[in-house]
Amino acid sequence: MKIAIAQLNYTVGDAEGNCQKIAAAAQRAKTMGAELLVLSDHAISGHSCLSLAEQPSFEQRCLDAANTLIAPHSHGLSIVLGTPDHPLLIGQGKMERIAPSIPIPIGAERIVVGAEPKRTPLATLAIDLAASAFCADDEQPRLNAYRQRVAQRGLPTLWANLVGGNTERLFHGSSMALGPDGQVRHLLASFDEDFALLDTNTLTSAPTISIDRTAQRISRIHDALVMGIRDYMGKMHLNRAALGLSGGIDSAVVLALLHRAIGPQRIRVLLMPSQYSSQHSIDDALDMAHRLGVQHDIVPIEPLFNTFRQSLSGLFGDLPDDVTEENIQARTRGVLLMALSNKLGHIILNTTNKSEAAVGYGTLYGDTNGAFSALGDVYKTDVYALARHINRHGELIPQNIIDKAPSAELRPNQKDSDSLPPYDVLDSLLRSHIEQGKDTDELVRMGFDPQLVERITEMIRRNVYKRAQTPPAFWVSARPFGQHPLPVVGRWRS
Amino acid sequence: MKIAIAQLNYTVGDAEGNCQKIAAAAQRAKTMGAELLVLSDHAISGHSCLSLAEQPSFEQRCLDAANTLIAPHSHGLSIVLGTPDHPLLIGQGKMERIAPSIPIPIGAERIVVGAEPKRTPLATLAIDLAASAFCADDEQPRLNAYRQRVAQRGLPTLWANLVGGNTERLFHGSSMALGPDGQVRHLLASFDEDFALLDTNTLTSAPTISIDRTAQRISRIHDALVMGIRDYMGKMHLNRAALGLSGGIDSAVVLALLHRAIGPQRIRVLLMPSQYSSQHSIDDALDMAHRLGVQHDIVPIEPLFNTFRQSLSGLFGDLPDDVTEENIQARTRGVLLMALSNKLGHIILNTTNKSEAAVGYGTLYGDTNGAFSALGDVYKTDVYALARHINRHGELIPQNIIDKAPSAELRPNQKDSDSLPPYDVLDSLLRSHIEQGKDTDELVRMGFDPQLVERITEMIRRNVYKRAQTPPAFWVSARPFGQHPLPVVGRWRS
Repeated sequence: MKIAIAQLNYTVGDAEGNCQKIAAAAQRAKTMGAELLVLSDHAISGHSCLSLAEQPSFEQRCLDAANTLIAPHSHGLSIVLGTPDHPLLIGQGKMERIAPSIPIPIGAERIVVGAEPKRTPLATLAIDLAASAFCADDEQPRLNAYRQRVAQRGLPTLWANLVGGNTERLFHGSSMALGPDGQVRHLLASFDEDFALLDTNTLTSAPTISIDRTAQRISRIHDALVMGIRDYMGKMHLNRAALGLSGGIDSAVVLALLHRAIGPQRIRVLLMPSQYSSQHSIDDALDMAHRLGVQHDIVPIEPLFNTFRQSLSGLFGDLPDDVTEENIQARTRGVLLMALSNKLGHIILNTTNKSEAAVGYGTLYGDTNGAFSALGDVYKTDVYALARHINRHGELIPQNIIDKAPSAELRPNQKDSDSLPPYDVLDSLLRSHIEQGKDTDELVRMGFDPQLVERITEMIRRNVYKRAQTPPAFWVSARPFGQHPLPVVGRWRS
Repeated sequence: MKIAIAQLNYTVGDAEGNCQKIAAAAQRAKTMGAELLVLSDHAISGHSCLSLAEQPSFEQRCLDAANTLIAPHSHGLSIVLGTPDHPLLIGQGKMERIAPSIPIPIGAERIVVGAEPKRTPLATLAIDLAASAFCADDEQPRLNAYRQRVAQRGLPTLWANLVGGNTERLFHGSSMALGPDGQVRHLLASFDEDFALLDTNTLTSAPTISIDRTAQRISRIHDALVMGIRDYMGKMHLNRAALGLSGGIDSAVVLALLHRAIGPQRIRVLLMPSQYSSQHSIDDALDMAHRLGVQHDIVPIEPLFNTFRQSLSGLFGDLPDDVTEENIQARTRGVLLMALSNKLGHIILNTTNKSEAAVGYGTLYGDTNGAFSALGDVYKTDVYALARHINRHGELIPQNIIDKAPSAELRPNQKDSDSLPPYDVLDSLLRSHIEQGKDTDELVRMGFDPQLVERITEMIRRNVYKRAQTPPAFWVSARPFGQHPLPVVGRWRS
């Protein structure tokens, strides 16, 4: 029996648009002779609807759209898809709920949807409808566990996953067909729409596909972020994007991802040097803009910085310079970028990374600005790994940007290492604490310096308020801050 | 039998500090001859712990603190309190879970905790442990419904509620003792800690207390917000606060609330007039600062605005002025306030209201700045009502600020009514849509202008991205944006 899997990229809340996509897939499936079309979970509504789902008329709108737009295409074709509440079977113009683990005869098969991992005697084919978001560190363990469950169930299985970026959530697609032994025999695209026509006979006979997500980790993070950028802009009908290019690694990697997502024509970068900017930063930023062919402008911030100092001189008297003056520079850059956005219509991309966000190394309403944060859930050491990945076929990011010591350049000769431990140490500590949930006692037992542990965990606590106001970050880790928020007001020992 | 209710203000996550508070209450209860001490739900941990509760060692830390700090005080005193998982009985130095609806003999009473609203034959007293957050519009209906449930159960009842502000969540206290008829016979303080010693005999005999939350609505919103400010600052050990005082109604009300919360000595206001500021705005702001006795400074933004224009002239060429120049002014003020905060140590209070936040009438990284938003869940018409309430004993807020037409003063002769309908119309529409969940079709059927409905609901949708980056707002409505978020990326008809 021929079955089609359509792995589609839905827009959250757009019931009509999503149903039209599904209708087109149904037409294609029928034309190709399929008797069954399988779609992911959260088709129709998209994921996540958040409080949209609480609106009294929302579920009805989704059902109405499915009835009007999908059901007419279901004569001679059965369609299985997931909704937030339950799976649906659409066939012969009618829609009905699917009860879990009860076999449904379709064509030559008896199909179970969402069956427990035990043998369902009368079934011949299992379908699992998924809305599985990308999580870089858990991909291989999750895949292994899933294959084991399929093997336990002992049925040929279709795993139909959602694809696309919906604000923070990045659905990776990678829908699969597996044999009753849990071996993957068909694999659809990752981070892109795809359509496959399968013959059920091949689920036991086709060559097995070996998947090594651990080896692909950085390239998959890259592809996930590019999809996230493309979908944020595309689904919001945003045409142009801009960012501040400092000559540092974070803005360089964000620019490269953006360039990959939308090409050079719709990008504009702003260089905003101060009296503390090094010549190599300006040169490296210009070099990068030229390599990618993106439009750049230079707006020095020294006159603005000096005017702020003059305006505040009455208030501040002869108090010495401190972090205030550093933040004024970062916030002045924020104002300039937002002015560009307001006047010329480019959205601004945030360039913060997860290591900085964790310890609050960045200026609120300055560095934290932007419509979304491409790297906000990516540790600094992975930002470097992304840079090397981006340069794998040629030097898109000038090597000097990757090689030099990171600096915010907000005072003379400043280096990140003045205030923070080396990033490999910091990231190792942050990962153990945030991703693996190790508390301070455990971190010390693991060999981290006790004073460093106290200092970093205190910084994580103290900067919850900043993270509460930062733009949505694309989630790629197991513990994104936005998904696991801490209390802004509170006191605790970690 | 004598029972004490201690209505305490806990700090989220601070298990040791919270248990010390409870221990002090236990000592007090014993001294006064109580046989039972009743505390609220979420004692020990505070509410809401958010992802703190996911940390593997968190629950154990809470139990350890209770064992070490509370249990030793439970000889001769039974203590009942709620945790995130289940109620606890602490007595004779031991802690045990309380099973719902099973009577426990304590002194002369047989007590049920969290009993279903049906007669529990062997019980003589019911205890309901609450963590009920303030919700201005639902107070009276909730109270009525609760009294009805108590009457159905037919047992004298203690309702012990949490009190205090924990970031957005404002717990109102108002713990009560009710008779078996559902009449309130003892009432503890609202928005403040309290301690009461009751004799169970009085639960059927004491005079009944009539409560009209509807009439108290604005005064209770006022008290809730003052508590929110006081607790945000107190629990974060923040001593000083500042805000921009424009001469408009929102900053005036925020200042009055702040003044009530922490007194004048620790407050500083900044007047930041531009060339578009009216003389009456400056005069009104100065008048208000003088009335309250708070320190004020004036930093004109015209030199900064002009320098921004010069810096951007190369980028913008001869493009006409638009919202860009308005936003530059708002963001310049944001930079100045944050500079004050960084240099002098005052936290900045946001002055946005819910009507503005709903339709995005305010500049991101300018008007939206601040540690927290006192009025972010208060509609503009209620801001006016709060101003009148604040002035009930005398003119703290200059009457002219209340009477004049609202304006952002970002261009010559600008009025809010240039871009928005009158606030009574806007708020009526927003309340119907947001609080009552009326969709566009229903709004039109209710008599709202169809074009206005389209325009306002579209503004609500289009500005989700701004609300995703604004500071925590104190929740007082039934549908705070922060509690019922909409997707940033999405497309839907409301």
